[in-house]
Amino acid sequence: MSNIDELPAAGNGLLDRRVFLRAGLAGSAALMTAEASALEREEWMKAPGGPMSEAGAPSSHEAHVVRAPVGSLPGTTGTGASRTPLQLLDGIITPSRLHFERHHSGIPDIDPGKHRLILHGLVERPLSFSLDALARYPMVSRIQFLECAGNSGASIAPEPIQGTCGSLHGLLSASEWGGVPLAVLLEEAGVKPEGKWLIADGADSAMMSRSVPLDKIMDDAIVALYQNGERLRPGNGYPMRLFLPGWEGNMSVKWLRTLKVVDQPSMTKDETSKYSDVQKDGTAKLFTFPLSVKSVITSPSPGLSMGAPGLYQISGVAWSGSGRIRRVEVSADGGMSWAEAALDEHVMSKCLTRFRSAWRWDGGPAVILSRATDEDGNVQPTRDVVLSTRAPGAGYHYNGIQAWNVAESGEINNVYV
Amino acid sequence: MSNIDELPAAGNGLLDRRVFLRAGLAGSAALMTAEASALEREEWMKAPGGPMSEAGAPSSHEAHVVRAPVGSLPGTTGTGASRTPLQLLDGIITPSRLHFERHHSGIPDIDPGKHRLILHGLVERPLSFSLDALARYPMVSRIQFLECAGNSGASIAPEPIQGTCGSLHGLLSASEWGGVPLAVLLEEAGVKPEGKWLIADGADSAMMSRSVPLDKIMDDAIVALYQNGERLRPGNGYPMRLFLPGWEGNMSVKWLRTLKVVDQPSMTKDETSKYSDVQKDGTAKLFTFPLSVKSVITSPSPGLSMGAPGLYQISGVAWSGSGRIRRVEVSADGGMSWAEAALDEHVMSKCLTRFRSAWRWDGGPAVILSRATDEDGNVQPTRDVVLSTRAPGAGYHYNGIQAWNVAESGEINNVYV
Repeated sequence: MSNIDELPAAGNGLLDRRVFLRAGLAGSAALMTAEASALEREEWMKAPGGPMSEAGAPSSHEAHVVRAPVGSLPGTTGTGASRTPLQLLDGIITPSRLHFERHHSGIPDIDPGKHRLILHGLVERPLSFSLDALARYPMVSRIQFLECAGNSGASIAPEPIQGTCGSLHGLLSASEWGGVPLAVLLEEAGVKPEGKWLIADGADSAMMSRSVPLDKIMDDAIVALYQNGERLRPGNGYPMRLFLPGWEGNMSVKWLRTLKVVDQPSMTKDETSKYSDVQKDGTAKLFTFPLSVKSVITSPSPGLSMGAPGLYQISGVAWSGSGRIRRVEVSADGGMSWAEAALDEHVMSKCLTRFRSAWRWDGGPAVILSRATDEDGNVQPTRDVVLSTRAPGAGYHYNGIQAWNVAESGEINNVYV
Repeated sequence: MSNIDELPAAGNGLLDRRVFLRAGLAGSAALMTAEASALEREEWMKAPGGPMSEAGAPSSHEAHVVRAPVGSLPGTTGTGASRTPLQLLDGIITPSRLHFERHHSGIPDIDPGKHRLILHGLVERPLSFSLDALARYPMVSRIQFLECAGNSGASIAPEPIQGTCGSLHGLLSASEWGGVPLAVLLEEAGVKPEGKWLIADGADSAMMSRSVPLDKIMDDAIVALYQNGERLRPGNGYPMRLFLPGWEGNMSVKWLRTLKVVDQPSMTKDETSKYSDVQKDGTAKLFTFPLSVKSVITSPSPGLSMGAPGLYQISGVAWSGSGRIRRVEVSADGGMSWAEAALDEHVMSKCLTRFRSAWRWDGGPAVILSRATDEDGNVQPTRDVVLSTRAPGAGYHYNGIQAWNVAESGEINNVYV
């Protein structure tokens, strides 16, 4: 058996990513003390189990794996957010029931038979699509992330706010999104030469509205009808939403109702009252597209418990609105040394990428961090670098490196390094 | 606007797959008759919508999107199957609540804290893993299909059995499966030189048991803990299952409890009483691995309704236990002429691949078929070819081409060609 100590990669116990391809991890399993043939049957093996059903549900032992909904703002209903419990998940797909939601006036109960998508403005032929009409067009489906502009905004607080990975960074999910390329619909409508932007309105009572440049629309925007194989869930835009890969979530307007081609952005309330980044010099960046390169360690992370010292997996997700993740590095000594993490097999553009490092925790204090690099060479910055460019309180589009402190007790906390 | 008639690809209205990349589809949307600004607000836009929640659910308008459970066999509980409603889904991910299930003695209610995985037999060090111990090892996650050996078995009936695509072919699903590579655990246990096979037993009361050659185990087998990002559902093996990419579903033993290294296959009841293919000459193939190349059109398909003549998307899934799908061809004239279908962007090994063709239905009769080819050059055979090699009644591992008849009325039926 090979020796795991032959493969150190960085300080404080980080192992080379080649351990994923080879032997000798010498893990935490107990050697057996009795013959397997002497195993007693557990009670659930002594009688037939439960019946078939129309739809499966999670185990009752997993009832804690839910989103953390943040209640409505005072005086409103349905205005708030629910966050994906990243610390309890693995892989890249977010189960649709756990996809984050951020609503400005709750979830409308839309009758799909009555709903229409209207394409109008600077076009030769205004068009109106029923759901059935839209479903007859050729579609595409891709696995991609969605992140709220306000995700991780708590990281600008002067002192680290304590919470789980999901409560701090869980306005982030990934799904297979399927629908009709908007380019096909716009070609059919015939965009007039002066048409350069599109205003997308939602059918919620807030009429969420955003301006989108037409070149993004023609590149990879879709009218999404399917999420993870089934029709969209109501909280994610049923029966249809705009989906703009790699751009801030609120631009992927849910419950999509009208698309108007115009000659310039329209300064809607949703793009002027929020989501603009005020800079150190007092000027504001009105738009931020695409979202920047970013990563976070989901395990170990606050709320999860460390057991005895020994082998652990450090695992997390990385993403970039610009394309694919090229590399993720992990540190276990607060950033003094870094090891390259293993990436799961399929690294897809504008999608979450799952990274993993083997770590032999010696039981002493450790500060673990991850740092992502995308295919354009963009490197995730430190918190200090992010804050150095911004006015105080500017918390949108935060992509700084997240550090978790692992205490000797095994307790894990949010920490700034 | 370009003319769609410039791009015919095969008989009876099939269009070239390049239409997915360009304009001029001239779809089925109605031109608008009024200004969009005159649109009246629907009732759901006039009041705030529903609140945040811990877990999202499908729309009440999608209550028909469920599995079709086949009740228990007489005198048993929980012995039967529930099938994925393929005709109502799109993309490649199967939502976990709709993943097919096939049980031999129902779904056990396992306490994850008490469950152990035992690795024993011809090994240097027998090992016992709790769930917590296992979760500390480096994992991998991949998106791959699972298909029951009995899927599509109804296709051997002398006359076409009428049913939906899901009821005929829905013992087929795809998920992101995450877990620990078995190679890592076996290296830790130390396989003795004479160890060549592994017997996997489940913790259900049927103690489902199968023999697996060790080279498959070392290649890409995992002990799966996660399905589509969350812990396995009980109907799919909670808290852990064996997962053997590309091989018949029952070998991916659910509720995995013991793994015993042995020197030869053990002729368990589950591999001798079933899943063996009797040939025309009366001999039997004891094992069939991997599963053969296959495809099916999910839309249009029986139970879905065609509307007015015009543009439609023909869409379906293709898969092969040997690797990637290289090509899918579609015919709308009963197999006289074929057009190459467009494949969704990410073609993954041992995974479903979504294919799509644009089709201008002229309202006349049509017979639509799909034919898949995998990266090894294996081509999906016709029904006649499949049946010509088998003894009567041998219905496992059926992979023949499926034809759907589209009548002038728009009704769609199962048909043999």
